[in-house]
Amino acid sequence: MKVLILNCGSSSIKYKLYDDDQQLAEGLLEKIGTAEAQLGHTVAGRKKLVSVHEVLEHHAGIELILQVLVDPEKGVLTSIEDIQAVGHRVVHGAESFSESTLITPEVVAKIEECIDIAPLHNPPNLAGIYAISELLPKVPQVAVFDTAFHQTMPDKAFMYAIPYVFYARNHIRKYGFHGISHYYVSYEAAAMLGRAVDELKLITCHLGNGSSVTAVDHGRSVDTSMGFTPLEGLPMGTRCGDIDPAVPLYIMGKEELNLQQINALLNKHSGVLGISGVSNDFRTLEEESAKGDKRATLALEVFCYRLKKYIGSYIAAMNGADAIVFTGGIGENSDIVREMVVKDMEFLGVELDAETNRTKKRGEAADISKPSSRIKVLVIPTNEELVIARDTRRIAAAN
Amino acid sequence: MKVLILNCGSSSIKYKLYDDDQQLAEGLLEKIGTAEAQLGHTVAGRKKLVSVHEVLEHHAGIELILQVLVDPEKGVLTSIEDIQAVGHRVVHGAESFSESTLITPEVVAKIEECIDIAPLHNPPNLAGIYAISELLPKVPQVAVFDTAFHQTMPDKAFMYAIPYVFYARNHIRKYGFHGISHYYVSYEAAAMLGRAVDELKLITCHLGNGSSVTAVDHGRSVDTSMGFTPLEGLPMGTRCGDIDPAVPLYIMGKEELNLQQINALLNKHSGVLGISGVSNDFRTLEEESAKGDKRATLALEVFCYRLKKYIGSYIAAMNGADAIVFTGGIGENSDIVREMVVKDMEFLGVELDAETNRTKKRGEAADISKPSSRIKVLVIPTNEELVIARDTRRIAAAN
Repeated sequence: MKVLILNCGSSSIKYKLYDDDQQLAEGLLEKIGTAEAQLGHTVAGRKKLVSVHEVLEHHAGIELILQVLVDPEKGVLTSIEDIQAVGHRVVHGAESFSESTLITPEVVAKIEECIDIAPLHNPPNLAGIYAISELLPKVPQVAVFDTAFHQTMPDKAFMYAIPYVFYARNHIRKYGFHGISHYYVSYEAAAMLGRAVDELKLITCHLGNGSSVTAVDHGRSVDTSMGFTPLEGLPMGTRCGDIDPAVPLYIMGKEELNLQQINALLNKHSGVLGISGVSNDFRTLEEESAKGDKRATLALEVFCYRLKKYIGSYIAAMNGADAIVFTGGIGENSDIVREMVVKDMEFLGVELDAETNRTKKRGEAADISKPSSRIKVLVIPTNEELVIARDTRRIAAAN
Repeated sequence: MKVLILNCGSSSIKYKLYDDDQQLAEGLLEKIGTAEAQLGHTVAGRKKLVSVHEVLEHHAGIELILQVLVDPEKGVLTSIEDIQAVGHRVVHGAESFSESTLITPEVVAKIEECIDIAPLHNPPNLAGIYAISELLPKVPQVAVFDTAFHQTMPDKAFMYAIPYVFYARNHIRKYGFHGISHYYVSYEAAAMLGRAVDELKLITCHLGNGSSVTAVDHGRSVDTSMGFTPLEGLPMGTRCGDIDPAVPLYIMGKEELNLQQINALLNKHSGVLGISGVSNDFRTLEEESAKGDKRATLALEVFCYRLKKYIGSYIAAMNGADAIVFTGGIGENSDIVREMVVKDMEFLGVELDAETNRTKKRGEAADISKPSSRIKVLVIPTNEELVIARDTRRIAAAN
């Protein structure tokens, strides 16, 4: 079954076209809303093509992507009607969605209700759904939510200690994100360990431009570091993560910032960029740290220390762990970060094989712990689009 | 040596009079700023005396306390000149003070500098110092700081992931509080274990109206849950503790609250009171939970779960722990909380002796773990005033 996967951001659309589990094409359209939107399009086995277009909104962007996919030279489809289902990554499903779902008018209405608590993410996701409804009206669409996997969290883990009315009326609680990735690597980890996911306790670390860590107990997310928004938890490239809640309020008062300004400060100018003053890119931080930049070193130390503490907290929460899993751009590629996080954890039964950690090939899954390690340490490349493709196929076929 | 200990709050003064380690008298003056200030005064071995006075500010309050202490009937001193030193609890010493210190004009100036980051706490502490300087001008005064013990934290633990300038210029970092109590119970725990504090890894949980947990590695605080202010960390009676930093900003926008209002919401209407809607008092929560109140149960569960996670995170941070120590009103008296926190932690080597936990006498220190427990679980009554009295004596005698 040929399935188109769309991940619509505020000014970008990522897409992948699958035939069953085989990827036929992928691409990224950036700078939507301008006359210089840039499309990078790659067909499996061919060279990447880059082109510039006027693309003022998502509908036009998706129209362009569909044109490219059926283009006799650039494309991979003979007709647009070859697309049998479309899967959308939807960021926020709140408490309405604990699994992937066929998109119906009722589902659209519920995703629209979530705009209030995900004002930056759900509108572009919906724009993609609206566009496909018009351009491919007969094709089934499926929504795969970044929050759904975490809906199994118990209330003791998701409830904030603020007046209850803000949960009951305003739906303020911990939701968690990156659920598609945490789900995927949990199952991959189980396969690597030769065990069923529902007999394992896992701690999955998705470390990228945004980072989160999840406690996966018997295949179910029981806690995760991101919260009501993706700002909570680990420090990230430019996001502050956990902080005394009095700090943003103090800065607002001192600097006379409004809500938009303080949100921008915490989301775009903080994290490892804020500490280091150097970069939000961990490769740059590692290079500058190696050259002796103290604040770059400090930024890496803060990041790794706080992840180490999350791991310890989730071992306590689950009363154990069978494996710690690293994924995402940083988790998959930075042996320095992985070593800083899991070294000196012998008391908890974590023994890194430092040599394997350093020498493992990029892009490959690996067990980087010693054979004697009570808790295994795994590196597993994530593949969120594959999850979306599979869910979309399964749900489209069943409906 | 006779030493008067003062703990001046915004509208209250707590005092204790010591002769060496022996307590002669103690009391609490409340509702300062009114014509109905209430003084509760107790001399060791006698009945508590309660009286009402017009006390409009701290100077008058301390004058009243000194009068009562030399009163032929109510007092314990023949002359005010019997007081040989005065020790003040000072909340915030920022990075200026890593230990208790003799109060000089330079020290007063530094404590005044800290008002900016401790606007609620340091002014009444200073009012007490000013008053004693006038009323007992020849008596040496000593400042004992709630933050000093935590000044040994490494930068990876105290640095927030926000632009570095806010640390360098505005001194925004994690400071931690309850340091006097964490310090005291660390040494008591070492004595109970028959070992030196500098060969132990301890996790000290001070649980009271405000709650914090500290990782004490070889006698030094290396991490603690409270932060720039006492709002961060565990949920408390009425404080929210850790929360997605986007949540207060979201509520401000939704409810059109100003900074004062959101601070009041997070500090006075949140915590276990906010979740339960019942009480900020853990005894009431336990009673209502036992009667079947679900939100009271949830409040207890959130509190205990989050403390359990902090314990796990600090075990990871220190790569081990020799003992977990409970202190403070809740830590010393709630066997229910202690059991909820440390049960199901066998993977980490924590084995509670549930029977000893339930039956141990109030006010007594006890080891409530099984003999086989790799990490001991101790209950130790705190005594912050004794620390202040001892530091005051030592420093006054040396100067």
